[in-house]
Amino acid sequence: MKDFNKIALELHKKYQGKLSVEGRASVKDQDDLSWVYTPGVAQPCKEIFKDREKMYDYTLKSRTVAVITDGSAVLGLGNIGAEASIPVMEGKSLLLKEFGGVDSFLICVQTQDPDEFVNVVKNIAPVFGGINLEDISAPKCIDVENRLKEILDIPVFHDDQHGTAIILGAAVLNAAKVANKKVSDLVISQSGTGAAGINIIKMLKQLGVKEIRAFNINGVVNSSTKSKNDKYVNQLLDDKIIHDNDLKDLADIVKGSDVFIGVSVANILTEDMIKSMNDKPIVFAMANPDPEIKPELAKNAGVYILGTGRSDYPNQINNVLAFPGIFKALLVTRQQVTDEVKLATAKAIASCVPENELSPDKVIPNPFDKKVPEIIYETLLKIANK
Amino acid sequence: MKDFNKIALELHKKYQGKLSVEGRASVKDQDDLSWVYTPGVAQPCKEIFKDREKMYDYTLKSRTVAVITDGSAVLGLGNIGAEASIPVMEGKSLLLKEFGGVDSFLICVQTQDPDEFVNVVKNIAPVFGGINLEDISAPKCIDVENRLKEILDIPVFHDDQHGTAIILGAAVLNAAKVANKKVSDLVISQSGTGAAGINIIKMLKQLGVKEIRAFNINGVVNSSTKSKNDKYVNQLLDDKIIHDNDLKDLADIVKGSDVFIGVSVANILTEDMIKSMNDKPIVFAMANPDPEIKPELAKNAGVYILGTGRSDYPNQINNVLAFPGIFKALLVTRQQVTDEVKLATAKAIASCVPENELSPDKVIPNPFDKKVPEIIYETLLKIANK
Repeated sequence: MKDFNKIALELHKKYQGKLSVEGRASVKDQDDLSWVYTPGVAQPCKEIFKDREKMYDYTLKSRTVAVITDGSAVLGLGNIGAEASIPVMEGKSLLLKEFGGVDSFLICVQTQDPDEFVNVVKNIAPVFGGINLEDISAPKCIDVENRLKEILDIPVFHDDQHGTAIILGAAVLNAAKVANKKVSDLVISQSGTGAAGINIIKMLKQLGVKEIRAFNINGVVNSSTKSKNDKYVNQLLDDKIIHDNDLKDLADIVKGSDVFIGVSVANILTEDMIKSMNDKPIVFAMANPDPEIKPELAKNAGVYILGTGRSDYPNQINNVLAFPGIFKALLVTRQQVTDEVKLATAKAIASCVPENELSPDKVIPNPFDKKVPEIIYETLLKIANK
Repeated sequence: MKDFNKIALELHKKYQGKLSVEGRASVKDQDDLSWVYTPGVAQPCKEIFKDREKMYDYTLKSRTVAVITDGSAVLGLGNIGAEASIPVMEGKSLLLKEFGGVDSFLICVQTQDPDEFVNVVKNIAPVFGGINLEDISAPKCIDVENRLKEILDIPVFHDDQHGTAIILGAAVLNAAKVANKKVSDLVISQSGTGAAGINIIKMLKQLGVKEIRAFNINGVVNSSTKSKNDKYVNQLLDDKIIHDNDLKDLADIVKGSDVFIGVSVANILTEDMIKSMNDKPIVFAMANPDPEIKPELAKNAGVYILGTGRSDYPNQINNVLAFPGIFKALLVTRQQVTDEVKLATAKAIASCVPENELSPDKVIPNPFDKKVPEIIYETLLKIANK
């Protein structure tokens, strides 16, 4: 691992940034100069001034997404700020291009004040056809996303919230199939109710799951812990989406569940807890880089299906499966990501594993499966054209 | 011209934006994914968090400039706003790349309130190694530039102010040589005291010109018109950089001058005015797209050296001669653009026309002369290393 860290650092130094901005037109002579700049460039400016819709005809807006963060909740690193977040945002932009053919540029915003952040994003929106919010701490991120969706006339998508939820939805659909259980009959226990956690619970509800038990840093989410949780978590409890109960700790909620979902911290799930689960226990332990239980221990405990965020084990729950295809589509549909879109995307991803390949070690496509972004793209265009 | 406008529009539609964002590293397998994104990307993030200087080692900051406008004074189009300004900013980015090898991305800011604008730029600065302000109305642009230079630790350069002044300085140096006059003996009359105009006057002062007469929309700039002019123009008058006098109109200040400089409006200079100038009249009529006097009329009136902003006549005063080389250097030197830097850049550009090629029709290099950005780059690095 030390060697790997050293190599990662050396490669970052070698490339000095993982993106470049290139011209699509060359400027070799006076004729080129006359259309790319003055006087010819005045023509599209005038057209856009008359009809702002023309931005989509004459500029990169139709092809380009902003990857925007305030650096308040970066990967497993926490609140490292805008400057230290740059390598992650470059990586995200790179993946958008490599997996979805989508151009993007990164905006790392210094302020962590939500009002100022929203104001900055609003102000720099003209150039972009979509906004990918990234690594913003919860619950602030939910409010920020909702406000930007209201203010802006371009799609806004917070990948940490919805991306993970979509992939997890796909994984649960296929896992139930492999375990020969009905999704609506599943009892699910979940550790973590942050940005991803809240939206995973919403996705599970959409999938028809009836009993979702939740646990977080304040203990089991139920009526007696209500005063400790944020308004978004409490809303899920009030709406009876999170199952109310009188249980006390994580072991209690995992016991008798069919699926455990972890979007929390390393090593919180024990072998005994897995042994207390229903037949054919399904575990998605997605804490990064160290999952809620070491894969070896989960296997010892008799886990039936195991998924993690890691690439060195089967069933990697990796957001790169969703966001490139989603943004490729959003640039065309120009619509916001609704519950319908999220559910359809989850189903589209699940469908990318052929029935005859489904197995406990393959409930989710490989991140490099090139048909995934294509199928997402086609699915979302169909929904938009309905 | 109609055909040309049509072609410019068609080309903009064909390219759908003149820039693309490309990956510098490819992501073909799990190993690639592991260093460009999680878990490897955490390493440079941690290094930057410990020492922000490391941004320059591990990210695109060291190579990338922001082209930023509020769309309040775009080319000859005026206040067309952020959205309609996009094609111009794309063009500027493209020229930075093609002429200077500099990566840049455009930020078109919705607000035209200077405080909010400064706040937006401050907030999005982390990603960039330099800021090129563009097409911001005067006198606001001067204040905005000064404030950003104070707040930020990266170079900030407003091309409309300083770019034109630098090229014009180069042109005046060579024109005096061709006309066999001493720069310090020149009497110069100027029409226009906006963003470019103010800085041209400062440049002329640096070149040693002793008498600079100025005219603007309020008439001749002198003690009697002081109440009508902005604080920056009045400062030049107070500092005796603009020559105080009791003249009444443009004809008065042009009469008996060696050089006329126009950064104002079309057709304001007459044949009679040129005839009233000193021996070997030098005229730089830079209003765009139509200069202060039609070139044919200037020739009739006996102009000795004529420069315009147009590519279809000799001596094109084109900012593309300066900003690509300047930003190529600023990304390395990381210093602000001082008077010394501007003067050195003007001299460097002037030196790019070999002595034996100097003539009334060649006082300034061709915009496509590839040695210009190289010589600017070398000159500015030498100054920084002093």
